[in-house]
Amino acid sequence: MNASLLQAALPQYFAPWVQALDLRVQSLDEQGVTLRLPQNPQLSRVGGMLCGQAMMAAADTAMVLALMHHFGEFKPCTTVQLGSSFLRPLSSQDALIEARVLRAGKSLAFGEIDIRGANDGKSVSRFSATYALL
Amino acid sequence: MNASLLQAALPQYFAPWVQALDLRVQSLDEQGVTLRLPQNPQLSRVGGMLCGQAMMAAADTAMVLALMHHFGEFKPCTTVQLGSSFLRPLSSQDALIEARVLRAGKSLAFGEIDIRGANDGKSVSRFSATYALL
Amino acid sequence: MNASLLQAALPQYFAPWVQALDLRVQSLDEQGVTLRLPQNPQLSRVGGMLCGQAMMAAADTAMVLALMHHFGEFKPCTTVQLGSSFLRPLSSQDALIEARVLRAGKSLAFGEIDIRGANDGKSVSRFSATYALL
Amino acid sequence: MNASLLQAALPQYFAPWVQALDLRVQSLDEQGVTLRLPQNPQLSRVGGMLCGQAMMAAADTAMVLALMHHFGEFKPCTTVQLGSSFLRPLSSQDALIEARVLRAGKSLAFGEIDIRGANDGKSVSRFSATYALL
Repeated sequence: MNASLLQAALPQYFAPWVQALDLRVQSLDEQGVTLRLPQNPQLSRVGGMLCGQAMMAAADTAMVLALMHHFGEFKPCTTVQLGSSFLRPLSSQDALIEARVLRAGKSLAFGEIDIRGANDGKSVSRFSATYALL
Repeated sequence: MNASLLQAALPQYFAPWVQALDLRVQSLDEQGVTLRLPQNPQLSRVGGMLCGQAMMAAADTAMVLALMHHFGEFKPCTTVQLGSSFLRPLSSQDALIEARVLRAGKSLAFGEIDIRGANDGKSVSRFSATYALL
Repeated sequence: MNASLLQAALPQYFAPWVQALDLRVQSLDEQGVTLRLPQNPQLSRVGGMLCGQAMMAAADTAMVLALMHHFGEFKPCTTVQLGSSFLRPLSSQDALIEARVLRAGKSLAFGEIDIRGANDGKSVSRFSATYALL
Repeated sequence: MNASLLQAALPQYFAPWVQALDLRVQSLDEQGVTLRLPQNPQLSRVGGMLCGQAMMAAADTAMVLALMHHFGEFKPCTTVQLGSSFLRPLSSQDALIEARVLRAGKSLAFGEIDIRGANDGKSVSRFSATYALL
């Protein structure tokens, strides 16, 4: 698995509305993947802050790619549970979404996602997720 | 507060990408609000199922409108936590998003959201949410 | 399944420390079970409020009994995820724990739990839970 | 703040039933605190596994101590939300509970808790928590 293959998975497996986030695979390592969400007025609510809905969508999407990276291929899976915590607002910068697989068994996978500002590196939201592998 | 005022709040307070969900205020009652999410290929992933990302975004948005309805006006608020559970897939129909305020205090508000198929009435996802009132 | 059988399951399947909650099966219906948690100074923190730790333990336990009721027998299962929201404190009364099965498939089960005061009927905490069926 | 002061807070601020977990303050650092939960048959369900109820109670308790450490004193606070994910069972060893403060503002605090086996170091459960500061 490499960044190009993961990038190519975005138009293949995700809804057009999710593709409109314009997520870019930034890096991969043993624990997971990091995506970049470019700053975009379409995703901002009044005041220029990145909307929470976009953060949740990016987090869920990043985790699916992290599982793909973990397994070395796309495995059909479905989100069972996603818990989202919003620590502080993000504005005037790209976001980095880091998704790590905590455990992947035969039928369930667990992961955590952190979103931080690309410029200031501050964590803005955290997610824990459970996936059923089909 | 009435359905037209809540409908008008969507372009006013939400990001364009969230507006693209094309949510419609369906009904209001004492406990909360119900929105309709029209079936839309832009929101579907392979297989024609409504993507979970759209469900989370619709749930969060519906809850903000339910709080607006509860308070009789828009109060600046921020999502603190949103827990999402995905019970089963939804396809080939609109979704109804029912958001109810459980408790709204001076600084925190709690709510629950249910998404069900508009045709078969089956619950497909559940959410619990906490908001900070600013 | 009846209340006596569920009551008998408590010492059989749960840790002694959980049994010390002294939970009593109050009623059963098609959707789930309701337990009573008697007022108990051992479970109270300063100020006489029922501690949140006891609420979470009671919620998880009630859901396992609701699944047992649903399946008509004890099925080995494990909690995958439990989300807890604390709306307000509870003091000076028993608690009623109502656990409902939302969906039970072959490998996963989903449920929701509400805890309310036995005297004033006010909801004090809410839980959503996912279980893996082994 | 030091380990003895945090240890002394346990009988002072927590319910006797929570004290029965016999949690011990193991270490403190800038990010948070680590507690030890000694292996104890009272906390085990059939098969000798540490019950999930004890893990949730330990996680919540550890986070309150981490906030006390963060603020340099006990601040009255209340758990708003606790999300619990159970990755794998734990048996035949003590548990280490590591609670870290992610962000503490004026009215809300956020944290994450990891529970791992004291012998094998494997993460068994993860928690994200939100507290209201009173």
